[in-house]
Amino acid sequence: MIAKRYKAAKLLLAVDCIIIGYDEDDGLKVLITKRGFEPHKGSLSLMGGFVQEDESVEDAAARILHDLTGLEGVYMEQMHVFSKPDRDSEERTVVVAFFALIDIKKYQNQMSTGYQSKWFPINNYPELIFDHGEMVEMAKERVQYRAAQHPLLLELLPGKFTIPQVMRLYEVLYNVKFDLGNFSRKIISTGLIIKLNERDKANSKKGAYYYKVDEKKYQEGFRRFLNFVNKPQFKTKN
Amino acid sequence: MIAKRYKAAKLLLAVDCIIIGYDEDDGLKVLITKRGFEPHKGSLSLMGGFVQEDESVEDAAARILHDLTGLEGVYMEQMHVFSKPDRDSEERTVVVAFFALIDIKKYQNQMSTGYQSKWFPINNYPELIFDHGEMVEMAKERVQYRAAQHPLLLELLPGKFTIPQVMRLYEVLYNVKFDLGNFSRKIISTGLIIKLNERDKANSKKGAYYYKVDEKKYQEGFRRFLNFVNKPQFKTKN
Repeated sequence: MIAKRYKAAKLLLAVDCIIIGYDEDDGLKVLITKRGFEPHKGSLSLMGGFVQEDESVEDAAARILHDLTGLEGVYMEQMHVFSKPDRDSEERTVVVAFFALIDIKKYQNQMSTGYQSKWFPINNYPELIFDHGEMVEMAKERVQYRAAQHPLLLELLPGKFTIPQVMRLYEVLYNVKFDLGNFSRKIISTGLIIKLNERDKANSKKGAYYYKVDEKKYQEGFRRFLNFVNKPQFKTKN
Repeated sequence: MIAKRYKAAKLLLAVDCIIIGYDEDDGLKVLITKRGFEPHKGSLSLMGGFVQEDESVEDAAARILHDLTGLEGVYMEQMHVFSKPDRDSEERTVVVAFFALIDIKKYQNQMSTGYQSKWFPINNYPELIFDHGEMVEMAKERVQYRAAQHPLLLELLPGKFTIPQVMRLYEVLYNVKFDLGNFSRKIISTGLIIKLNERDKANSKKGAYYYKVDEKKYQEGFRRFLNFVNKPQFKTKN
């Protein structure tokens, strides 16, 4: 056994998972659960728990999400560390908040009803314990920022989609209303989507054309600002 | 005193600061120090230390940077949590890595020589303990990514600048060489800079024109992808 030479106070490290789901018919939602341990057992909170000795924070987040929802294989990313000394009323606990943006329908079958977690509208969720409300608000900003960076949010759109579908996604993300004519003109003028020779007739008699992303232009467009730097070679050490 | 009800293993939480400095004449550098405590005392490492009971991780990062370099008022942001169970050979320690990108000259006077820290070229720094090399590489990617998002890296350019100055910044960031004629054409074509009626004659007989950022276009340009969403009102709860 190695002698422990570090002399510093230890603390509890936890993870909380902010799972934002998009439901085409029903908007953006956040997954909330009932806290399963004292104090405040039964209060509404994000899904969270303590990091164990033999796991990374990523391991802990995946384990906790699975334990509390049955969900597996959800891609989560580190969002922010919340560490005010008094953020948890019980005992000092530093939290690494994880964030995921998922298509609710894709995971619907995995989430069985035996769990205590539930989706709430992101603009109308109940009060949460500690600073969990602050975490949800930060995640919401993250989604909006991401939409500004990656305008088509590929993770949330099917391979082919109609313009009304994209518009609904943006309306939900930014909590605004668009005019379909204006929105269509503007999104088409980005040059990032390709019209397919096929219509969705489920939602209107005339039908809305399907589009797909022009992957090549999309990638280029994302780097548009950098286009005066011609394919820089990222030379890194190692 | 509150009864402690949480039953979970505590661990050590530390912060490490990756301070990337830009020196117009000398490129990108990273601030390295000598570890001041056992084990591995004297090894080269990033500036770091343990988070104390009464401070947030931000407080800890500012305190440590000041203690080890004399630097004050450096804006640092959370970069990433490093938490592999065996990342520190001595005892389990989770690290919150902080990142800053600064203009070395602006801070030159603050950094007195009484401290053990030293700037090293970012593409040629010595071996560091634990996973600190990985942290530096991630910070380097962060700088490159940021340059792609905010092409003029305002924090590193003076209020007025010449195109050769911007080119040097990009050459250093991406570790490539540009042709001045091509680079000029391309950066001018972004429409993001305004030519001033004034030349820098210090570096050539003919002199290079000074430019300044077109702040309005720059802001718009950054949101260019979003321009089919007309000034969305970010309505948030709370």
